[in-house]
Order: sequence, then C-alpha cells, then structure tokens
Amino acid sequence: MTFNLKILGSASALPTKNRFTTAQVLNVHERFFLIDCGEGTQIQLRKASVKFLKINHIFISHMHGDHMFGLPGVISTFSLLGRKSPLHIYANKDLKTVLGNFLGYFEKNINYEIVYHSLDNEKPEKIFEDDKVEVISFPLKHRVPCCGFLFKEKEIQPQLNMKAVETFDIPVNYRRLIKAGKDFTTPDGEIVPNSKLVIPARTAKKYAFLSDTAYSEKYIDLVKEADLIYHEATFLEEDRKMAKATGHSTAKEAGLFARKCKARKLIIGHYSTRYKKFSCLLDEAKTEFVNTDEARDLSSFDI
Amino acid sequence: MTFNLKILGSASALPTKNRFTTAQVLNVHERFFLIDCGEGTQIQLRKASVKFLKINHIFISHMHGDHMFGLPGVISTFSLLGRKSPLHIYANKDLKTVLGNFLGYFEKNINYEIVYHSLDNEKPEKIFEDDKVEVISFPLKHRVPCCGFLFKEKEIQPQLNMKAVETFDIPVNYRRLIKAGKDFTTPDGEIVPNSKLVIPARTAKKYAFLSDTAYSEKYIDLVKEADLIYHEATFLEEDRKMAKATGHSTAKEAGLFARKCKARKLIIGHYSTRYKKFSCLLDEAKTEFVNTDEARDLSSFDI
Repeated sequence: MTFNLKILGSASALPTKNRFTTAQVLNVHERFFLIDCGEGTQIQLRKASVKFLKINHIFISHMHGDHMFGLPGVISTFSLLGRKSPLHIYANKDLKTVLGNFLGYFEKNINYEIVYHSLDNEKPEKIFEDDKVEVISFPLKHRVPCCGFLFKEKEIQPQLNMKAVETFDIPVNYRRLIKAGKDFTTPDGEIVPNSKLVIPARTAKKYAFLSDTAYSEKYIDLVKEADLIYHEATFLEEDRKMAKATGHSTAKEAGLFARKCKARKLIIGHYSTRYKKFSCLLDEAKTEFVNTDEARDLSSFDI
Repeated sequence: MTFNLKILGSASALPTKNRFTTAQVLNVHERFFLIDCGEGTQIQLRKASVKFLKINHIFISHMHGDHMFGLPGVISTFSLLGRKSPLHIYANKDLKTVLGNFLGYFEKNINYEIVYHSLDNEKPEKIFEDDKVEVISFPLKHRVPCCGFLFKEKEIQPQLNMKAVETFDIPVNYRRLIKAGKDFTTPDGEIVPNSKLVIPARTAKKYAFLSDTAYSEKYIDLVKEADLIYHEATFLEEDRKMAKATGHSTAKEAGLFARKCKARKLIIGHYSTRYKKFSCLLDEAKTEFVNTDEARDLSSFDI
C-alpha cells in the first residue's frame, strides 16, 4: 500500500539553483495530494513523473508567495491538458479572491471547476475524508494565518487468518464480526479467541506537514506518533531571535518537536539562504532527534 | 563590448523537464534586459549566474501566462534582496492593474518603485534609450495584443587612427570633427581624406525578439540585417492550419522571415510539446535559412 512523499521544493523564500520553493506531493493509495505550490511546482511535478491529472486536492498552508506562486501555472496547465474534473484547493479564505482575480484575466475558458475550501485558523478541522484517508488542518504560529496538515490513513481492520477460518469452519456471514474483533464459539461450545482468527492489522500511517511555524507544542497530541513529520527549520539556534521575530523555527526546535511527538522520522527544510553549509542545520536537528533527514528537491520518502 | 543573449526558458505554453517557459536575458554593455518572464525565471537567472539587481528593465511581449507568470517571484525576490532602485516594466497596459492587484496582497512593503510603461499595439515605438542602446517595440500578430522588441546599439563612431593623427599633427580640438567624418587640410593646403585618418567603426549590433506571432512581413524593414533574430516556431509546416488558428508560426516561416530580413543568424524556440523530436523543427527552419540554431534553456549567444 503506497504512502509516499516526494519533495518538489525545499527552499525558503529565496529559491536557489538546486532548491525550488516549498511544494510536496503525497501519494496515499494512489490519491495524490499536493501540499503547497511554490513557483515552478509544475516543472518539478514533471521531473518527479507525477501524472498531473491525478491531483485533485491542493493544500496551501498560507498566503506567502514562496508557498503558492506556482498555482497560476499549475491551474493553467491542468486546463491545457484537458482536465474536466473539479480541483479542490484548501487554503486561507483570501485565496479565492486574490487568485481568482488574477487567473480571471488569463483563463477565461478554464475547462474545470475550482472548489475553494477555507481553512480554519482557530482550531483543528477535518477537511477531507474518503474510504482510505483523512486530512486534518491545524493552526500553526506564523506572521500570517497558517495551517499545518495531518494526513492519516483510516483505521485498518485485521485480516482473517484463512487457515484458522478453515480449521474452525467459520460461516461466511460471521467473518465480518471476527474482523471487527469478536471471538468464535464452535458448535461444540469451544471459545476460540479472536487473536487466533486474525492476522493483526498494521498501524494506520500518519504524515504531518508543519511549515511555516514558530516552535509550538499546542497540537503535539494531534501529531503524536506520526510516522513522518516535515517541520520547517529556517534558522540555526544561534539565530533564534530572528526565528522568533519572523515566526520561524530553528533546526534544534524541529528536532525537539519530533522527539516530543515520539515521531518515527523527521525531515527538515525551508533553510534560510544565509547559511552556506546546510549540513549544520541537519546536525543541529539530530542533537534532539537522531532519525532526522533533509528535504532535498526530488527526494522521496516511503512511509 | 558585450552583446550577449542567454536563453532562460524556451518552451511554449507547457514547460517540460528541461524547458522552462519563455524568458531571455540580454546583456548589452552590462545593461541587463529581461525579455519575457515565464514561471521559474528567477531560478534560471540563478543558474545563468545573472546578478539580479543588475536588471532594471523587463520587457513583456504579451499577457499570456507562459510569458509572465514568473513576474511575482522575480519582483518579490528583488525586494527580499534589498533592491532600492526603480524597476521598469514595459508591457501591455493591463499589466499594471492585473499584476498590481495580485502583488498588492503579498508585497505590502515592497522596497522599490515599479514603473510601468504601456506598449503601443498599433505601431513601432522607441521605448528605451541611453548612450549605448535603444529599444524599439513593434506590434506582432497574435491572439492578444503582442509586441516584439528590437535592441539596437547606438551608432558607433570610428576611432582615430593615432598614427595618422601624429603624422599630420592634427590639433586636439579638431579630432572630434574627424571622428564625425571631416577631412583634414594641412598647413601646406594638402587635403587628407577622412578615410586615412580613422579606423572604420564596426557596425552597430541588433537583436530582434519575435514571440508570439503568426508570420508577418509588416516590420521586416525595421528588423532588416539584424545580427540575431529570435523568432518563435511553435509548429511544423504540416500543422500550418493550427499555427494560423492560434496566431503562431511554423519553423519554415521563421526561417523565411530571417532570410527575407537578411539576418546574420536565427534562433528558434517555443516549440509545441506535440512534437517528440524537436530536431524536425530545426531542420525545417534550415531549409529556408541555413544559419539557424535552437534556443535551449541556458544556452548563450554572443552577438
């Protein structure tokens, strides 16, 4: 079952030769979720071999250019490629007006509907759900309203142990109950405990995206035990004052957050271009949380 | 004396892995002119090692996204880099409103002035001039108002032949007249023809940018004998009907235009992604004009 994250852009406000501004694409069981959409996202999608028309949902954390200047290009290209199905964009309420006015000039004949969903800046909210996955937005702590996103697989039922099913000759119409946790009583009155009848389900997977944000533990319970967390790490601890002033985190804080969450793995990015050696940021985060990796453009993480 | 063109983006409406949408940067004696500004232009400028703050003039041919969706990023980045000097943008009159409204939301504290200059869609017009270069816009033939740009070095005066100046002992205050074409009469009454007194000036250089446009000979005299022409070549002759319907040219037409102009060199680009082998377009243009080359991203042409 696919649960894969591809980094499309990992830079902060200023892109570089090798790092586009923030964008990621998450594949959960062949549902493709685009998270933020910095300038050039459509080019990175091509490089990552993502099929454009498989993307039906775009999540924009906040209204800063480095997280959304790729939207006009993506939306226009979808139209040129003949898209017909609606595109859902989850973002600050202002996006509809600001982007709508801009695009209205260029795309008079856009072939598909754009459905804008406004994010709640006050509290967590389930913003998407289907049979496999749900997406929850939650407020971050930035200079402008900003949300993180938690992508959660739906709870997974255990599988039947078919060998046991045969041994105890369990009727077909009873099997659903066993999957849901029931024991089985044989015609002879023997009680077979549920644990003998099923193969335990793997834990449902979770990915949490937190950018841009100052350090905050407010929603740590929500994100708890995530398999993967992306947390911005714009600054080093030595520039903590600047991090605070601009509503960003240090690499150490990103590590601390992952440790407090008991996450399985952390990736960091959104580095300030003031640092010549980005490895310092990774090293700093690792002092708090060893299993930290770096978001590099076009890197891929299987969850 | 530098007169160099760098291709930043060479794709048509749909960028690919290797081709960004249209943008070029022309360096004329260390004046850096940005011509069109497709999405990702700021990233390509970094790759081409162009110093951002040396760009004071941006020329936008027309209001289609693939020629201007890079403007918000470029303008924001200039501001983040501490630009103070005004930025001049030459474009369709609508740009000021459309871009102004969009940017107004993001860049409340932009540090420098943007001076918008409206292009004339009816006739050629000199839109920029300094001591070294002048820029003339001229209407192209597209679905929306669209202009080409001609970049011309100012006429270059011949240099004094210092050996002759010494031989005939020409007074300092007379030398300016000789540079301007005068003969010299010696104290003995001998007339020394101007040609003996100067080293002839090299011809002033010209670069013409024509994209997007259907084939038209209307301004051929203006562009005549250009050292370099960039002419769009979206389609092959076999798709001429489509070229006509969409206001574009075929590769053969681009070659024909260069031949009729008696240009020294032609580069073509803006290929439709319908063609799997772009070499066909180059081959087709060469049937009309042998000295044709292809615009590839980050390729460089010394004029």
